[in-house]
Amino acid sequence: MKCRVCRERAVMQVRRHNANFCKTHFLEHVRRQVERTIHDHKMIGPGDRALLGVSGGKDSLALWDILTDLGHRVDGVYLHLGIGEYSSDSLRFSREFADARGLELRVVDLPAEYGFSVPEAALASKRTPCSACGLSKRYILNQVAEAAGYDVLVMGHNLDDEAATLFGNVVQWNTDYLGRQRPVLPATDGGLARKVKPLVRVAERETAAYAVLSGIEYEVEECPMASGNTVNRYKEWLNRLEDESPGIKAQFLFGFYDKAAATFEANAAPVLRECTVCGGSTTGEVCAFCRLKNTTLVRIGRSDV
Amino acid sequence: MKCRVCRERAVMQVRRHNANFCKTHFLEHVRRQVERTIHDHKMIGPGDRALLGVSGGKDSLALWDILTDLGHRVDGVYLHLGIGEYSSDSLRFSREFADARGLELRVVDLPAEYGFSVPEAALASKRTPCSACGLSKRYILNQVAEAAGYDVLVMGHNLDDEAATLFGNVVQWNTDYLGRQRPVLPATDGGLARKVKPLVRVAERETAAYAVLSGIEYEVEECPMASGNTVNRYKEWLNRLEDESPGIKAQFLFGFYDKAAATFEANAAPVLRECTVCGGSTTGEVCAFCRLKNTTLVRIGRSDV
Repeated sequence: MKCRVCRERAVMQVRRHNANFCKTHFLEHVRRQVERTIHDHKMIGPGDRALLGVSGGKDSLALWDILTDLGHRVDGVYLHLGIGEYSSDSLRFSREFADARGLELRVVDLPAEYGFSVPEAALASKRTPCSACGLSKRYILNQVAEAAGYDVLVMGHNLDDEAATLFGNVVQWNTDYLGRQRPVLPATDGGLARKVKPLVRVAERETAAYAVLSGIEYEVEECPMASGNTVNRYKEWLNRLEDESPGIKAQFLFGFYDKAAATFEANAAPVLRECTVCGGSTTGEVCAFCRLKNTTLVRIGRSDV
Repeated sequence: MKCRVCRERAVMQVRRHNANFCKTHFLEHVRRQVERTIHDHKMIGPGDRALLGVSGGKDSLALWDILTDLGHRVDGVYLHLGIGEYSSDSLRFSREFADARGLELRVVDLPAEYGFSVPEAALASKRTPCSACGLSKRYILNQVAEAAGYDVLVMGHNLDDEAATLFGNVVQWNTDYLGRQRPVLPATDGGLARKVKPLVRVAERETAAYAVLSGIEYEVEECPMASGNTVNRYKEWLNRLEDESPGIKAQFLFGFYDKAAATFEANAAPVLRECTVCGGSTTGEVCAFCRLKNTTLVRIGRSDV
């Protein structure tokens, strides 16, 4: 197995590109994939101040490394979810990464600043933990980006994440979610920051390999609340399909972007108004995050927060 | 395991309906599924003359049995594909079925009437056999329905067939095919007969069980040209999904009909004109069947036909 570029011994096989790479050229390959994604979708302009959602896992830290390497000015934001040791460990990995490179990491502490943790919100609201977490992340990261005047909010979702989410939305034909599943979501008047996903061309095993090969220390453990969740089941299914038909996952995701996403866009343009509690964007009276927060604080007896 | 209806010993489990059935009530259940499909989609009106595509396999013969049982007047049309023993056997099963019930079976012999077989067409055109076969079937069955003045052309595609085709079209985002994947395709001015699929609510193992339990003799062998084809691979993959999440296949297919199919319909309304060779409907100058026929006859040295 030889590197496609230099014919030295390869350490990584990328079947869907029918290519093997040595360490140097694999890292280069991943960087070029990200660069191309940013370019093709006009994700980050020159001089843009970007804010990256950082979890301390392989995807967000690899992406931070790559973006910095490509010359982008990117700060990070870490949301402490209050999930025991998992949260304290992943915060430590995020901090050490940022400190070693002189990067700025903003930290938002959900329990300290909002009065509740993700496990508490999940229990109180009868949502799955992943749902309560996703909702809180979207809200708070957007708020930080808006409040601090960043031009773009960057997320570390990889090819597998996006393909699994797309598959879930297709299986259930969630046409409204399908209308919002794009690598770039433009900013809205109502206060939603521009959001981009530069890792959509990079598979999960490739971001992991990138992190390991470039010596990034990251939280290897999966979130203890996420095991067996739906997206992970879809990922496993798609991996079995990918084993039989290398490239099918990418074909499915990029085919959607190119040929079908626009068809669903009309479904995803609801009329937004201001949340009567926080002033953020919502389709109803009170936004989903404020409702989650209220339900949880009442349930855990902290409605004084 | 007891029958949901009569509490006698069940012989068939239908996991996605969370139900078990004895023989009598399973057959009844399948009939009701077909009846409901026909009713909900207004597939066959009272007094309609229907023509059923008959292959000699479980699906088409079970459907012929059910439609007759439900009081519909249905003739069959068998297309002899010229696939050796498989074709002669399946014609025999079709004839015996029709004769035993006093039903009319029309037979079209592709090699005798058009000068070529499906294996020859596949070789000559470099299509897969399933593609050459599908194209020929669609053309000839439609022609028979139109020429003999039938009101509706009925096809025996089951839930698994339709879900696998949908999955294939979604994986590649064939938006034009997605616009045409409906349980009912209306007749067109250009001479395409109304086409309906009353088995879309019945899974493949259920049509097989229906045929076996009601004593229908059918061609059990799969077409020797079809092994390992793409649709069969998708079927296997969807079956594994269904094992883990009973009902997911039906959710995927019916969710598409209900929530997404209309979104793609605009893609599926090409301007049709008359084929300059046969006068049938086509989007180009010469229709795909006439091109297939011509290529094949030239290649096998029978262009005098």
